[in-house]
Amino acid sequence: MYSVKDEIRILGFDDGPFKPRSSQKVLVVGVVHRGGKFFDGIMRTWVTCDGLDATKKINNMVDESKHKEEVQVLMFKGITIAGFNMIDIKELYKKTGKPVIVVMRKKPDIEEFKDAIKNFNNSEKRLDFIRNAGKIYKVKIKKNKSIYYQFIGLEKSEVEKIIKLSSTRSLIPEPLRVAHLIASAMVGGESRGRA
Amino acid sequence: MYSVKDEIRILGFDDGPFKPRSSQKVLVVGVVHRGGKFFDGIMRTWVTCDGLDATKKINNMVDESKHKEEVQVLMFKGITIAGFNMIDIKELYKKTGKPVIVVMRKKPDIEEFKDAIKNFNNSEKRLDFIRNAGKIYKVKIKKNKSIYYQFIGLEKSEVEKIIKLSSTRSLIPEPLRVAHLIASAMVGGESRGRA
Repeated sequence: MYSVKDEIRILGFDDGPFKPRSSQKVLVVGVVHRGGKFFDGIMRTWVTCDGLDATKKINNMVDESKHKEEVQVLMFKGITIAGFNMIDIKELYKKTGKPVIVVMRKKPDIEEFKDAIKNFNNSEKRLDFIRNAGKIYKVKIKKNKSIYYQFIGLEKSEVEKIIKLSSTRSLIPEPLRVAHLIASAMVGGESRGRA
Repeated sequence: MYSVKDEIRILGFDDGPFKPRSSQKVLVVGVVHRGGKFFDGIMRTWVTCDGLDATKKINNMVDESKHKEEVQVLMFKGITIAGFNMIDIKELYKKTGKPVIVVMRKKPDIEEFKDAIKNFNNSEKRLDFIRNAGKIYKVKIKKNKSIYYQFIGLEKSEVEKIIKLSSTRSLIPEPLRVAHLIASAMVGGESRGRA
């Protein structure tokens, strides 16, 4: 794709707090961050708790954004958002043309996850989304500290470089840390705890 | 007070977009930023367009914040917010115990401002707020680029150091740049332009 620069523009997403299993609209905040360095912009949308509209809503938000051209990669914390709403990273990559990186603090138990999904509507589609997210890899960020990731549209080495260069202030990339703080505050009034 | 450190925690405020002269509630976002370096937290409140509740509302927000103890200085872009709502920095300093810095891109025309204020209720109180903001100073940030400021609770040299060290990405301090982007996006859907 491109050579990974320190100030690569990453668009990282997180959801605000919500009542589980409520079908309510949940705030999703997207933060444009220059690598691990600084805040460059922000956008928002709403997705349905436990619904399946996240991929489409996020694609629309990116598509309408003034940051669209400059953003080089999309980043999520896990493929679920707003409860069991799920991101189809393959579809999102196809639609936006932007590579997608998914990071996870812990290795997810896919079998347990698949079991949980059977309780939701469109469970076949949801299982597709899990497959589309691809293999789970592990990368060491700091000594003794690793995180897990999935991706599409990049080389593995590029993904690891992006994760490492953007995790400057904590154990997750800055766009995700900041998106979490903002999404929490905009619903709850103030950011609570760390991402 | 304290020696000014590079990662001094500054709480910078900005308002979201609103309909002028509407008496509507206007979003005010406060961003905790470590000097000019990175985003550390966020809080929000609402104040009345053209009202006089900003000082109290902002004091309450700071008082209830988990960031209260660690924040070392408050920062505003001008003493008006949400139209002609105004910050009494003397009162805010007294209440919060935090020094306050007000920065302005251009030197305000105080006589013109005083004339405008005569059209609002409590104009005597508003004139007091202007007096309480103190003398306007000028500081050069980059070659050929200066901004203006007022302050309370610090030495002039400390104020200039804080303004300079926090203006890393543009001609205004980072907490104000970022607060502007977030406040705009949370009302309008996406951040528009630069602070």
